[in-house]
Amino acid sequence: MTKTIIGVMGPGKGATLKDITNAEELGQRIAREEWVLLTGGRNVGVMDAVSRGAKEAGGLTIGILPTEDKTEMSPHVDIPICTGMGSARNNINVLSSDVVVACGSGAGTASEVMLALKAGKPLVLLNPAPKLLSFLQELPYPDPQIAHSAAQTISTINNIL
Amino acid sequence: MTKTIIGVMGPGKGATLKDITNAEELGQRIAREEWVLLTGGRNVGVMDAVSRGAKEAGGLTIGILPTEDKTEMSPHVDIPICTGMGSARNNINVLSSDVVVACGSGAGTASEVMLALKAGKPLVLLNPAPKLLSFLQELPYPDPQIAHSAAQTISTINNIL
Amino acid sequence: MTKTIIGVMGPGKGATLKDITNAEELGQRIAREEWVLLTGGRNVGVMDAVSRGAKEAGGLTIGILPTEDKTEMSPHVDIPICTGMGSARNNINVLSSDVVVACGSGAGTASEVMLALKAGKPLVLLNPAPKLLSFLQELPYPDPQIAHSAAQTISTINNIL
Amino acid sequence: MTKTIIGVMGPGKGATLKDITNAEELGQRIAREEWVLLTGGRNVGVMDAVSRGAKEAGGLTIGILPTEDKTEMSPHVDIPICTGMGSARNNINVLSSDVVVACGSGAGTASEVMLALKAGKPLVLLNPAPKLLSFLQELPYPDPQIAHSAAQTISTINNIL
Repeated sequence: MTKTIIGVMGPGKGATLKDITNAEELGQRIAREEWVLLTGGRNVGVMDAVSRGAKEAGGLTIGILPTEDKTEMSPHVDIPICTGMGSARNNINVLSSDVVVACGSGAGTASEVMLALKAGKPLVLLNPAPKLLSFLQELPYPDPQIAHSAAQTISTINNIL
Repeated sequence: MTKTIIGVMGPGKGATLKDITNAEELGQRIAREEWVLLTGGRNVGVMDAVSRGAKEAGGLTIGILPTEDKTEMSPHVDIPICTGMGSARNNINVLSSDVVVACGSGAGTASEVMLALKAGKPLVLLNPAPKLLSFLQELPYPDPQIAHSAAQTISTINNIL
Repeated sequence: MTKTIIGVMGPGKGATLKDITNAEELGQRIAREEWVLLTGGRNVGVMDAVSRGAKEAGGLTIGILPTEDKTEMSPHVDIPICTGMGSARNNINVLSSDVVVACGSGAGTASEVMLALKAGKPLVLLNPAPKLLSFLQELPYPDPQIAHSAAQTISTINNIL
Repeated sequence: MTKTIIGVMGPGKGATLKDITNAEELGQRIAREEWVLLTGGRNVGVMDAVSRGAKEAGGLTIGILPTEDKTEMSPHVDIPICTGMGSARNNINVLSSDVVVACGSGAGTASEVMLALKAGKPLVLLNPAPKLLSFLQELPYPDPQIAHSAAQTISTINNIL
């Protein structure tokens, strides 16, 4: 009965146009697979775009908010979890996801990638910054899987699940 | 689009038979109102019973787990949030609920009642221990609302929302 | 080499004059025993008074702040730990203390008393509210120890250590 | 009265011999400056070595432990803060440090570097992995300061304070 949860991590204000486009399509595709989407829940960047995409396709969206209330929440979040613990909530994002997808490469997203490695979570990088990728490949963990499109991200997740 | 979340807090192993019966009926009634149920997510006591009730009536259930994984999760949780932060997650339970219901009176539940007062959350006590209630009535907060049955809890919540 | 840490929990703005007087004397006596004092770190009520007392007697004071920075810190805190996690930090207060002392009976303090019971921490109540005490005595935990003065609190702690 | 706290982050089991040597010398030098040392508190790698160094030189050491108790604590920690929140405690490490030093480049350390950037904390990298550094230099934050020895780390910190 427990649902499959796909966590999509990505930059807020620093998201590129490409990150946003990828995120929205990825949200749609996650919803079509009937997976639940989990994000950091804020009303900016990848968090907002992937949640919007999931809702366009009729999905269910969870937002793990850094704040104590919903004032900065994406309007596309169905289930806000108000942690009131700032960036420490990044670890909850990772632990609660069956697969962690990083869409873009900001500092917060990179912190979640590192926490996913430490927690042993399956990790898919959608269009990662080449320099982040080469650092990751040198760490003593299995190489993360790479995807170059939202569609390829979905098939990679399907191989993992 | 954001759903109404009702948090039901209650004892684990220390739950009384009455707490369990109340919790299961309360879960059914929460689901029938189309509210989302939030609990501490473990496979014991009130958390388990209220989640089972909600699923019997076709509801959606969130479990904010103290652990890093799902090993002690109630099988009636749809959406497990793995916090890995032990009893510190009690504050997330409270902050994420639109209304907090305490069903029973153990130490963990009492900690959530106190945190709900501090956070200014609407609070309903279903059959509270008289001694907990008299302590609460002396604190400098609005008196919590009292209910004597699952049905009365629902009408109290409806008045609050 | 690890120091003995005594955690003193108590109300902020809601502290009574008696709580404040007790707290300041308790801080002095904790410092004279060469124990480290741990509090919630804010510049109000018992947290502030007990820290001031400890510094008057040359002690070392830790403040586990709810905030991300030091803007609301007691000036008598030597070592601020900035958690940025609000009331969820109450659990850290308890877990980090070798003995937990509750000086006064507000909602936040009562939450820490409950968390101390759950964590199995030795607990001393200095002049507790009678109604809080009678609720605690009915819970399935060992009865907390009661003290009626700062001096008696110290001898109770010495018996525990 | 509040002390200056220098947080030293670094790998546990994955620390290199060079990281360990640097860490021990850095701990000694931090103590001689009369700064308080803050680490992740465990009995392995950089956390253990820098704490040992600080104690050799008579310093004061804080350990922000991921666990609920002290079973995996470095014996060189004076003040253990037991968070019980796993890797989510990395954010507390960063927020509580006046300057963050990364000594080595594991996944956990990299997560703390990212959180330090997000929190706007002064950051010194002691012998960073070149690939981590080139990723960091491309992020929209001020470039972190680099040091090549424990001595240079101290003079960099002195310039910051």
